[in-house]
Amino acid sequence: MSLVGIAAKRIVTCDVARATPDNPLAVIEDAAVLYDEHSISWVGPRDAAKDKAEITDFGDRVVTPGLIDAHTHSAWAGSRHDEYALRMAGADYRAIASAGGGILSTYRAVTQASEAGLAAELAARLRRMAELGVTTIEVKSGYGLEPDGERKQLRAIARARADVSLPSVIATYLALHALPESARGSRDHYVLRAGTSMVQEVAQQKLAQFVDAYVDANAFSVDEARLVCDAAKRAGLGIRLHVGQFADIGGAQLCAEVGARSADHLEHVDAAGIDALAKSGTLATLLPVASFTLRQDPPPVAALREAGVGMVVASDANPGTAPTESLPLAMALSVPMYGLTPAEAILGATRNAAISLGLAGHGVSRPRGSLTSGARADLVVWDLPHELAILQPWATPKTHLVLRKGQPIAGSAHRR
Amino acid sequence: MSLVGIAAKRIVTCDVARATPDNPLAVIEDAAVLYDEHSISWVGPRDAAKDKAEITDFGDRVVTPGLIDAHTHSAWAGSRHDEYALRMAGADYRAIASAGGGILSTYRAVTQASEAGLAAELAARLRRMAELGVTTIEVKSGYGLEPDGERKQLRAIARARADVSLPSVIATYLALHALPESARGSRDHYVLRAGTSMVQEVAQQKLAQFVDAYVDANAFSVDEARLVCDAAKRAGLGIRLHVGQFADIGGAQLCAEVGARSADHLEHVDAAGIDALAKSGTLATLLPVASFTLRQDPPPVAALREAGVGMVVASDANPGTAPTESLPLAMALSVPMYGLTPAEAILGATRNAAISLGLAGHGVSRPRGSLTSGARADLVVWDLPHELAILQPWATPKTHLVLRKGQPIAGSAHRR
Repeated sequence: MSLVGIAAKRIVTCDVARATPDNPLAVIEDAAVLYDEHSISWVGPRDAAKDKAEITDFGDRVVTPGLIDAHTHSAWAGSRHDEYALRMAGADYRAIASAGGGILSTYRAVTQASEAGLAAELAARLRRMAELGVTTIEVKSGYGLEPDGERKQLRAIARARADVSLPSVIATYLALHALPESARGSRDHYVLRAGTSMVQEVAQQKLAQFVDAYVDANAFSVDEARLVCDAAKRAGLGIRLHVGQFADIGGAQLCAEVGARSADHLEHVDAAGIDALAKSGTLATLLPVASFTLRQDPPPVAALREAGVGMVVASDANPGTAPTESLPLAMALSVPMYGLTPAEAILGATRNAAISLGLAGHGVSRPRGSLTSGARADLVVWDLPHELAILQPWATPKTHLVLRKGQPIAGSAHRR
Repeated sequence: MSLVGIAAKRIVTCDVARATPDNPLAVIEDAAVLYDEHSISWVGPRDAAKDKAEITDFGDRVVTPGLIDAHTHSAWAGSRHDEYALRMAGADYRAIASAGGGILSTYRAVTQASEAGLAAELAARLRRMAELGVTTIEVKSGYGLEPDGERKQLRAIARARADVSLPSVIATYLALHALPESARGSRDHYVLRAGTSMVQEVAQQKLAQFVDAYVDANAFSVDEARLVCDAAKRAGLGIRLHVGQFADIGGAQLCAEVGARSADHLEHVDAAGIDALAKSGTLATLLPVASFTLRQDPPPVAALREAGVGMVVASDANPGTAPTESLPLAMALSVPMYGLTPAEAILGATRNAAISLGLAGHGVSRPRGSLTSGARADLVVWDLPHELAILQPWATPKTHLVLRKGQPIAGSAHRR
């Protein structure tokens, strides 16, 4: 693939080096982007594009970096519509989980599915997500629970990683998600195996780039999660943790202590926890679809902003608390429900999401999440005239063209 | 087209004659539907299907009537992302409207668009809506404001009505939506023309089946709207009215007085208004996306239910207060936000929506909104195992096959 280019009325670069208070997303009007299959070589005013590249003009449309969904459980099987309806009628999520529903319900469905079946369901889901503008997606294991189930789920995720017609997949080994019934009498043994030898195996087999653990009341303790984090550091894997969804048990401080890239959920976090995140440079990944379906109060966004904690917005796609496939829906909810500014919502699904996944920042080659010289050529041409329109709750695909490494993978123009 | 059939694990008939308290949607398990291009000839347990029809088995999927979106303004041009962002930051909708934004903003965009351009934009939108399972959709005018603009918008809607590859369109002449600036000195004249001679013209040219008016504080009075309703009755058009979105000025009582099929919005309605609706058999069309983006309290659903008022759920698709294309999103919001039961949400987008549009009920041939012998063959095979799963906020198309009059118009199997 030789150098090509696209031009449009608005190119939203999300390039912090160009951003100003009046232009926080560093939008360039009447602009062009030149790229090949490796990366973007130039971004600037269209008139200044000197290259001989063939430039396609997308008129009044807006162009953004490919969206990055930094927290999903999208490798699932089965359906939890029954408990969703119970919750809508007022039942408590943790009571359903204690009775063998929740994560354990999906554990049973994933246990029964084949690796190929899981991979096919994930691929179909990722294709629908690509139509919404997503070009990179984090996918967690955590529904296998036992070693064989986790291996199967991670191998299914690896199949999706190998398919270049899908969004790029970043795999996370979710070591501690729920205690399977088989381990109720041997919790320590379960935690030790899932959190140490399995972490080592997953790293050796390159089945994941990150580890995760669910640190919360009724889930796993800070000390249990620390085991996983220490094993991850020894194995060279990154760390991201579920913390403070239902109660603040000190998960944010653990994130800071172990150098986690991201602390996810944070509906419950105190000032000390926020301070710890700010000092360690850990990002806060916010999940508004889950707190909407759980009817929770929002996380302390104003305090996070004030402390300088970078914010990420993600779909949390999962069959229980966030039965959605849409990062744009999460972005749309984040503004009225969480009080994010439009720019925060867009940076939360582009540049900040990339940083939380180790795909942007100092020293990263071909960074994602922004349209800059040297960045990976992942971008979206929207059938919308302005980046603010992306935040409206369309709930249908509004993409014209979705490029991953310069190659079309979705969009109304691609489907034609 | 000869008789054919489909079989599936769950067929949700929405047939009130078969419904019971334990089975309010009259679901038949392991069932089949036989139909031709005119209508459904038989629905029942698969084993009892005696016909020689070729039956396609859709396995564990759920089948419902085609969804019916009974309140949309989807024939728009332009974008109101700027005022959406202002509202998200706290600006008041009515203040934006008074300053020339709101409806008047879309009026300017529609005025500049050509009839063909409007029709093309509407067709593309309806195609995306069909992918979400919508087979019948009400589309209002009301962005033309002046006679020429209204005619243009209604003719664009008529083009979509003629396209059998789209959902069936029911056209509504929204006679009184906002006062154009040109009429500020001549309100009475404007109301008289829009509400009488234009109603007659629209009826004669068969450009609409319903009339509508926006009855609210800062919009039009009960007396002004009564003019439109009286003209509609003389011309043989049905009536549906926007009432009580911001204030209760007696719109529900007007609906009852003039025999409106539907009273829409109803965030503000008192006990007398609810009583009037119940006595007249007028349905309440609820619009949760609009009250979500306006951060309004919900309509009095419990009181409406108690009084026996039939409830409809619709998208309100419009570029300002409900910038969505998704009836399933409205259904998903109606349960946690409005407290509708899952069965009410599904009936609100099928059978009750059909009744509100005069497409079901006593004496209607080929009724829509239910799967019964004689009903129109509009149905959806979902890539979901249960009707409750339709109410989860997927925000991506989850349809396998969407049939309008027995012909596929959308769905993942149709696109292949």
